[in-house]
Amino acid sequence: MQQIYLDHNATTPIRPEVVEAMLPCFTGTFGNPSSVHWAGRQAKQALETARDRVATLIGAKSSEILFTSGGTESNNLAVHGVLKPRGANPARIVTTPIEHSSVLETVKALGADGAPVDIATLTVDSQGRISPGELEAALTPDTVLVSIGLANHEIGTLQPIRELSPTIRERAIPFHVDAVQAVGKIPVDVNQLGVDILSLSAHKIYGPKGIGALYVRQGTALSPVFRGGPQEREKRPGTENVAAAVGFGCAAQLCAQDIETTHPRLIHLIARLWDGIQRHIPDVARYTPTQACLPNTLNVGFAGASGEGLMMGLDLAGIAVSTGSACAAGSVEPSHVLLAVGCDEAGAKSAIRFSAGRDTTEEDIEAVTHVLPGIVERVRKAGRSG
Amino acid sequence: MQQIYLDHNATTPIRPEVVEAMLPCFTGTFGNPSSVHWAGRQAKQALETARDRVATLIGAKSSEILFTSGGTESNNLAVHGVLKPRGANPARIVTTPIEHSSVLETVKALGADGAPVDIATLTVDSQGRISPGELEAALTPDTVLVSIGLANHEIGTLQPIRELSPTIRERAIPFHVDAVQAVGKIPVDVNQLGVDILSLSAHKIYGPKGIGALYVRQGTALSPVFRGGPQEREKRPGTENVAAAVGFGCAAQLCAQDIETTHPRLIHLIARLWDGIQRHIPDVARYTPTQACLPNTLNVGFAGASGEGLMMGLDLAGIAVSTGSACAAGSVEPSHVLLAVGCDEAGAKSAIRFSAGRDTTEEDIEAVTHVLPGIVERVRKAGRSG
Repeated sequence: MQQIYLDHNATTPIRPEVVEAMLPCFTGTFGNPSSVHWAGRQAKQALETARDRVATLIGAKSSEILFTSGGTESNNLAVHGVLKPRGANPARIVTTPIEHSSVLETVKALGADGAPVDIATLTVDSQGRISPGELEAALTPDTVLVSIGLANHEIGTLQPIRELSPTIRERAIPFHVDAVQAVGKIPVDVNQLGVDILSLSAHKIYGPKGIGALYVRQGTALSPVFRGGPQEREKRPGTENVAAAVGFGCAAQLCAQDIETTHPRLIHLIARLWDGIQRHIPDVARYTPTQACLPNTLNVGFAGASGEGLMMGLDLAGIAVSTGSACAAGSVEPSHVLLAVGCDEAGAKSAIRFSAGRDTTEEDIEAVTHVLPGIVERVRKAGRSG
Repeated sequence: MQQIYLDHNATTPIRPEVVEAMLPCFTGTFGNPSSVHWAGRQAKQALETARDRVATLIGAKSSEILFTSGGTESNNLAVHGVLKPRGANPARIVTTPIEHSSVLETVKALGADGAPVDIATLTVDSQGRISPGELEAALTPDTVLVSIGLANHEIGTLQPIRELSPTIRERAIPFHVDAVQAVGKIPVDVNQLGVDILSLSAHKIYGPKGIGALYVRQGTALSPVFRGGPQEREKRPGTENVAAAVGFGCAAQLCAQDIETTHPRLIHLIARLWDGIQRHIPDVARYTPTQACLPNTLNVGFAGASGEGLMMGLDLAGIAVSTGSACAAGSVEPSHVLLAVGCDEAGAKSAIRFSAGRDTTEEDIEAVTHVLPGIVERVRKAGRSG
């Protein structure tokens, strides 16, 4: 059976070049980078080359990159790392309602742990965008962190980080940006954006799972969450994941090279997908903005159909898509992102996220637009009779 | 030049069979296990098979295994995970002075964070062993955690966990055992040992770096440290590192098969190394116990020589060994383990840790005993003239 993968926002296959780059680290360059002998030095060198490459992708200095186990750890480390030095002082965190659960749940847990944390959750409009005026008004003197995602994982909305950052930074408030879904899909430069802390993840850019990074601008105070050895400038202990870091570095290099050609191609494919859906299926709602959004993401509501049913129907046809975010799959709760942009529960539960990737072809899109109308019809019918 | 690796307690090369097992997860079985479609299901299946294999290695149920990013995270999660539900209640933790830094520093930081935690650090004898009587006396009613390493990373001492556990468990105190250095080298069975929480790491058993596990006995309360998605039974969020888990599972299976043949071979090799050292080098002190210790570890003090100098001299001859633990390398502090077993600072700084592995040969040991006497002599001479 055909297999068409349109769930690149959940994870991506590793590029063969990345696997090639990683292989020598498994058996040859296998040392512990903390060891001072030949095996350790070789591993350390591989690790630092990888760090340079990840730094280059986002315009950072190598010394500003901490390797973590992934996007979730990066977001947790960002929030806890900035908050911890405040101790028992009152502190406000400003964020949005459409962040990834690794930001939202972390912020929520801070409050629950008893520390006096005031969480200011900005509103978003129907496109998922926050208002610069509302942000500015939320920046009280006790605000210790602003955390805003650059690209939303479910609907693809980009926030105008570059326009927001001066307001935040002139108040000397650390500005954390979750760029896990943005990096590799759009150009991301920490200096152009004007951010202090930025999360990224390898497995979203055709690198391995189990490794991410946190950019921490020089001079930004950050406490570790875990304790142990002095690795990663004493911010993240534990034997470094050299092979995965090398894979991450390679993936970073490759996606920097590709982005100019991939970006317009993805825009074209998504436009074609939306065109096919609109043309052949009645009563659809586009939840992904038409402007200032990820090039690869299309979130669509099919009124009267269950997203779960659609996803399973597509899966039977070999087509992998997502309802809500993969991280929340298994739960039948409507997506918090779709609710925040004004969908009602039924609308949110009728949504499917298509996320294309560098391996997606015109034929893939054609195949989807070919089978989708029939699947939607069947699922809608089942819903009416059910 | 010859390359002889005698630093297997720092890290091990991945076995080729493990690399083979991981390769399909990079490109074929690349899905996100949280996704419900074909790609996700394939990944989920691979992940759960891996979990079964890791569980089998230590006699656990699959549902009692949480994957983490490594031993450091496992130890951090064990300590924080047990402590968190206590809130502001007074709590005592009982531990030893020779634990890995990821236990010691985590416990220390708990106290510093303001929570009223009383840390009872047991004493160890000259072999690094705690006294069951002292342990029992330390178990006050407000003790919420006992954390004791099964095998010491620097000198190889094994603690009599099986004899200690009834005292702890009859008081219903959670018993955490850091078994990172023990698993794969000696048989480890969570039920025979009678432990509630146990840390292990893949890269110490010829598996990949960047993955570890925490065994948590059914019914043991544990809070997550990170927040985010519902992965790993809501105890450890983040996209699961499928390829590394599969590698871990494969390594676990292989080391269970090998342990009966590897164990006596390592004992023989270490005996031969110690024999060669004793025979050819005056004024040496064995810090590794002769009984109830890891089969692969030999920690030796060379009076009047600097461990750093010896390590570098051996490195020049292509022989990789460690001074203190690799995690503390780069620092010139004497090993906290050696100080705890009664070494003075000079003695601790004269120590070298040899740790053999499944790839170590008789010829390797012969080569070391051949070059070591000359290196010790030169380093001792340099120390006298320096």
